[in-house]
Amino acid sequence: MQRYYIPKDNWEKEFVVLTDEDAHHIQRVMRQQIGDTIICNHPDGQAAICIIEQFSTEDVRVRIKERLDEDSELPVHVTIAQGLPKGSKLDFIFQKGTELGAAAFQLFEADRSVVKWDTKKAEKRMKRYDKIIKEASEQCHRNVMPIVKEQQPLEEIIESNMYDHILFGYEEEARRETNHSFADVLSQIKNGQQLLMIIGPEGGFSDQEVILLKNNGAIPVRLGKRILRTETASLYALASISYHFEELKYEN
Amino acid sequence: MQRYYIPKDNWEKEFVVLTDEDAHHIQRVMRQQIGDTIICNHPDGQAAICIIEQFSTEDVRVRIKERLDEDSELPVHVTIAQGLPKGSKLDFIFQKGTELGAAAFQLFEADRSVVKWDTKKAEKRMKRYDKIIKEASEQCHRNVMPIVKEQQPLEEIIESNMYDHILFGYEEEARRETNHSFADVLSQIKNGQQLLMIIGPEGGFSDQEVILLKNNGAIPVRLGKRILRTETASLYALASISYHFEELKYEN
Repeated sequence: MQRYYIPKDNWEKEFVVLTDEDAHHIQRVMRQQIGDTIICNHPDGQAAICIIEQFSTEDVRVRIKERLDEDSELPVHVTIAQGLPKGSKLDFIFQKGTELGAAAFQLFEADRSVVKWDTKKAEKRMKRYDKIIKEASEQCHRNVMPIVKEQQPLEEIIESNMYDHILFGYEEEARRETNHSFADVLSQIKNGQQLLMIIGPEGGFSDQEVILLKNNGAIPVRLGKRILRTETASLYALASISYHFEELKYEN
Repeated sequence: MQRYYIPKDNWEKEFVVLTDEDAHHIQRVMRQQIGDTIICNHPDGQAAICIIEQFSTEDVRVRIKERLDEDSELPVHVTIAQGLPKGSKLDFIFQKGTELGAAAFQLFEADRSVVKWDTKKAEKRMKRYDKIIKEASEQCHRNVMPIVKEQQPLEEIIESNMYDHILFGYEEEARRETNHSFADVLSQIKNGQQLLMIIGPEGGFSDQEVILLKNNGAIPVRLGKRILRTETASLYALASISYHFEELKYEN
């Protein structure tokens, strides 16, 4: 069943109204008919099976048939802070990160980011990212869509007090014995906590950034024994977090 | 330091000879000079730091300076059997799967594969895949390059007796209570064993395939709570296997 993420204001007590691209998609792409069913997601994570009752040129009106009790969210809230990478890698990171359960994405211009954040193009870019995330959320049946936070200096991000745990993927950890096993760190995180996972751009973190991170209590972790590309690192982290909290603890 | 995977026949006692694309890359792309160092990998997984001693129009001759004692391979040998997906997804799966430690990739035409294996184009395609894997291996410093096995019927693959454990990612497992936790299965796998991880194409496995798999002792596993695209499933599996064997067991 096709899933749509519907803004809060479009929900009534017994009805939901789909507008714009969703209305177009349901009529023109999916070619659905009166009486067909879809799933509508409320921004608070609740979902409902709905029956199509009325089409108009502007919108589609559906009746709420059954509230769903489903949960496809990671037990911990993971924000991926991604140092701006080259090319279209962000598209990839947002799509795959959404599938793998990220709660939010935060961008930052790292010392070694070749690409700078173009504030003139920011609005257009953010719209594009939202679209990618919306489509990925619908496909993988997320309860809530991850949000994208615009570029902010790394210092502000880690000093924001928003996070219970701050980790960063650090290649150098792969080269020496260390006390910080990724698993050891994850084992200390409780359900419902906020985790910030910081990933460097191509070329990794600068020495200054590593000092800044460590001085602010961010913990360096190794993401396996191989050296991952920047766009693969967040996926490794998210898959491992899912494995740790959803599969490993599944039977225990 | 740039890394090259050199065929067995090009190794002498104290020297290695780089030919063809490697010779081109070292001279024209990297613009390296006599006396510069590179890393050469032998197909058996051994690597050595080598000093460039001689250029010719055909090849580059390097002297073995120091044998390296490095290991970036997963403790278990993972073969990803991938149901043929659409478009360029195989390129993506091979590149990311190499980074994440796959030992081999095996293709199969699944019941729901929209794309069929074109034997006429097979040679050209396999060359393309080898190139992607070679480049990814060099970038992430793999000891050995994963191999790609051409299309083979699923039945032959699972009846080959090559594998100690056969798993398949099965979406339906995500929808019901199950005794097969992915973590539970991984906990029974020992270092050095051969693991076959089978991933369906878009649309997943057919009922017949699921019966065939189960009848042959393949174990269905859930890959997290969300529904992953076919090209994301193998990455989730590999990242989780790396996490389980390289990070989780790191301190225990």
